[in-house]
Order: sequence, then structure tokens, then C-alpha cells
Amino acid sequence: MSGTNSERKLIAEGPAIVLVEPQLGENIGMVARAMANFGLAELRIVNPRDGWPSEKARSAAAKADHVIDGTKVYETLEEAIKDLNFVYATTARERYGFKPVRSPVVAAETLRGRFKAGEKTGILFGRERWGLTNEEVALADEIVTFPVNPAFASLNIAQAVLLMSYEWMKSGLDDLSETTFQPVEQRPSTKEQVFGLFEHLEEALDARGYFHPPAKKPKMIDNLRAVISRRGFTEQEISVFRGVINSLDRFPRRWSKQNRAGEPGAALGEAAGNDADE
Amino acid sequence: MSGTNSERKLIAEGPAIVLVEPQLGENIGMVARAMANFGLAELRIVNPRDGWPSEKARSAAAKADHVIDGTKVYETLEEAIKDLNFVYATTARERYGFKPVRSPVVAAETLRGRFKAGEKTGILFGRERWGLTNEEVALADEIVTFPVNPAFASLNIAQAVLLMSYEWMKSGLDDLSETTFQPVEQRPSTKEQVFGLFEHLEEALDARGYFHPPAKKPKMIDNLRAVISRRGFTEQEISVFRGVINSLDRFPRRWSKQNRAGEPGAALGEAAGNDADE
Repeated sequence: MSGTNSERKLIAEGPAIVLVEPQLGENIGMVARAMANFGLAELRIVNPRDGWPSEKARSAAAKADHVIDGTKVYETLEEAIKDLNFVYATTARERYGFKPVRSPVVAAETLRGRFKAGEKTGILFGRERWGLTNEEVALADEIVTFPVNPAFASLNIAQAVLLMSYEWMKSGLDDLSETTFQPVEQRPSTKEQVFGLFEHLEEALDARGYFHPPAKKPKMIDNLRAVISRRGFTEQEISVFRGVINSLDRFPRRWSKQNRAGEPGAALGEAAGNDADE
Repeated sequence: MSGTNSERKLIAEGPAIVLVEPQLGENIGMVARAMANFGLAELRIVNPRDGWPSEKARSAAAKADHVIDGTKVYETLEEAIKDLNFVYATTARERYGFKPVRSPVVAAETLRGRFKAGEKTGILFGRERWGLTNEEVALADEIVTFPVNPAFASLNIAQAVLLMSYEWMKSGLDDLSETTFQPVEQRPSTKEQVFGLFEHLEEALDARGYFHPPAKKPKMIDNLRAVISRRGFTEQEISVFRGVINSLDRFPRRWSKQNRAGEPGAALGEAAGNDADE
């Protein structure tokens, strides 16, 4: 989905993403892209199987060049995280141990809090095939795991990075219902505008004998008003409706002479009248 | 990351994922995999460019065969959604219109509520290059958009499906801090166990002249106790600590005769004593 706007500020802050012995350049590139999508920029790689730099990574990064260009490569995980204050290890497998296990939401909130306090943080992601070793997990402060389908829990590293990056971005929002754009603002209609719509419609229908038999007219009007006003109108909607009524009320059909010869208005009125009467 | 357990129940319920004119089989496969990860199973495709079935899709789905096998193909979007009650359109681009725009969290909660009420729902995802047309968005009830980096907003369809599927799974959890596994449970220690540790350590240190000069002993003990008990101990931790003290206290070094000849214990004690005194 497109929507990138290069004139807008590029967000690039937050925890370092640390990939331990990733195998495929494509995966590293997709990680970089996912990071850029959600405002992360610091990528560290421990001992990438196919070396670095990687043209496959750059290509898969889909223009997240600022992440690829800034990527640092290390020989050991200890080197890669030695300047950090707090580190999460990601895992899908259950680990037997004493380390706290957090959900992505809680982990992202923790990382956001530490970021605001000036700490340097990181998130470790393991190899494509078998994740992190127990020794690597032991270097982290806490574990983060994803709420996956137990019978289908295999996430690739780019997906895992995407989810953590997304939760990181969300942890910076004041309100989880916040969206980057809003619908065109619409003013709610006043009751006077609603009554004007009712009267307009009812007069046009009355002129065609819609309210039949006359004794049922009050009940039919009640039903009609209930149906058309159930969700509340905006000013714009009232205006659209009145245009529609005007068109149906005042102008003959242009394109079908055959229909003009019949009496579709009366027939429709009667059918609708029967419905409203039940 | 591995962790799939085929003996566990496969979750497969919730909104249909509707891909409009996807181009690459690989992307369709990655969508199926992301759905399976988070318990969705109903995939609908409108007019896939490279036809269906697709071996590339099956291969990229990484064994999410139940999703691939159940995929239905339609010629038009209207056909694909005609049996549904409520539909979201995903978009990264700002759309000018009157439809409500929701965050993924709110959209997933809405879908969960409608699912519980027995409604059939769906989420529309557009083409790789340019998403959904305005006419396609108009067929949906509401819009969902992702909180992306404004300067790098391009999500691929598999990523967008992954995020919505993940939020769907989360919307079914009672508690967002819930995780699929927990650390080994540890009982907090009693104060008696903590005091036992203090006395054990202090006796071993005292026997080596650590508390020097004697006048500073009470203050040094205060500092020592504060440092080692800052975070609270579990029973297991007390047990580990006491084993460590026993080992250091009772047994000589085996492997380095040179060090045994010096007095590392005394030197360490003095340095620590100076620190504790400040």
C-alpha cells in the first residue's frame, strides 16, 4: 500500500534491532523496511551468513536506505549489545527459565519508558531456522513472545520485527484509537433540518397517494421517520437526501419512455405503504 | 522462529481476508501464513493476476495448507463480499470521504464484537502497487489505517494482513499482557531466609577481616545489605547465593596455585569496604 510522503519528517529513534546470524539478505532487507515503516532506524547484525553489505538486502529494503546504510555488523552478540542498558530477547518457543516473559504490548511500553529516561535499548531476533540459543537468551534482561496460534506459531524474522516495530510506534501514541488521517468533518444536523427533510419527503409522497388508507397515515409517518432517521443525519446527508427527493419528485424519467407511461411512483408507494403497515 | 506444535488446537475463525487483484503468488502465500499465525483461515481473492491455484503461493505459505486449500476466487469484489455483514477497507493513503477511519486496535475490537454477535465480516486489502480504488473503498463500511512513519508508509500486503491478523488475535485476549508461556514459578523468600543469607555472608566476610576498621562495621553492613537485597529475592535465588558463599568460603582454588599464594579475598574486601563507606 502506498502512502509514503517524502516531505514529511522521517522518524528514526528507539531500540536497536539486533539480528543474530541471519541467513538471507532478503530477510535483512525486509527487516529494514519494517523498521522504517514504524520509525526505527538502528539495525545491528551479528555474523550474517552471506556477508555484508548485501545487494539483496538493499533491494528488499524497498528504499529504507537510511536503515541499510547505518547497519552495523558484529562478530559476537556480546559485542553487538555491550553499549546497551536493557535488552529483550524474542522467542516463539517456550523457554524454561526465570526471566520475565512479556507480551509485545508490555515490552513496547517498557522500551518506551526506558527510551524516555535516556536508556539505550535493543531487541534480539534469532536465526530463521531455530531462533536464539539459550545462551543468547540469557544475555537479555527479559523475554518477549507473540500471542500466536499455538498450532501455527512460526513467524519469520521480518514478521517478528514488524510486530515489535509496530508496537513500538503504538507505544508512542497518546491514544490507541489515533489514526493518521480523519474523515472529512461533518456537522451533525439540527432537529429543524431533520424536520424539514421529513416534511419535504412526506409532502412529495402524500401528493402521490402513498399514505393509504388515510386512517393509517399517522402510523405510516411514524414508521417512515423511524426508518430514515435511525442513525442520525449530518447536514451534508440532509442536503443529499433533499436533492434526491427533489429529483424524484419534480423531474420525469428521461431515458425510459416506456416506464413513464406506467405509474411506478404509485406502485412503489403502495408496496412501501404495505411494508410500513405491518 | 519456530515453536509450532501440531498437537495443539488449530484456531481458525474470524473475519475473511479479501485480497483485491493481488499480483504475486508469493505475496498470497505470505498472507496465508500470516493469517494462520494468528488464527484466521478464510482467504478470498478477487481476480489474481497470475491465476489460481498457485504453486508459488503454496510454497510461500510455509505449510499453512488449510488456508491455501480453502481459498476462494472471485471475479469481482462485489461477489467476494456479498454474503458478509460488515467490511473494513485497509488503506495507507489518506482518503477524502465521510467513512469512519479506525486504528487497527479499534477495528479489531469492532470485528471481534461483530464476530461474537454472529455477523460475518471481512477486511479488504488492495493491490501491491496502488492499493484499493476509491470505488472499492466505497463498498466497505469503515476504513482502517496503520500508525506508520509518515515519511515511510509503504506496507506490503502480507505485512498489512499480518498486523490486522495480530490485532484480531489480541482482541480475543482477556489481558494484553497475556503471554503463551510463563517463567518458571518462583516463591518469594521469607525474611527469615533473607536474614539467613545476610548472616551467612557477613560471618564469612568477618572471618577474613572484611569489616575494617571495626568502627565502620555497622555502616558497612547496612550498605552491603542494601546492595544485595535491592530487588527482593526468591527462595531459589537465596539458595543459589548461599551455595556461592559456601564455595568461596570453604574451598580453596584448585586451578591457580599462583593466586592462592596471594590474598585476593582481603584485597577485594578492602576495596568493597571503601566503596561501601562513601
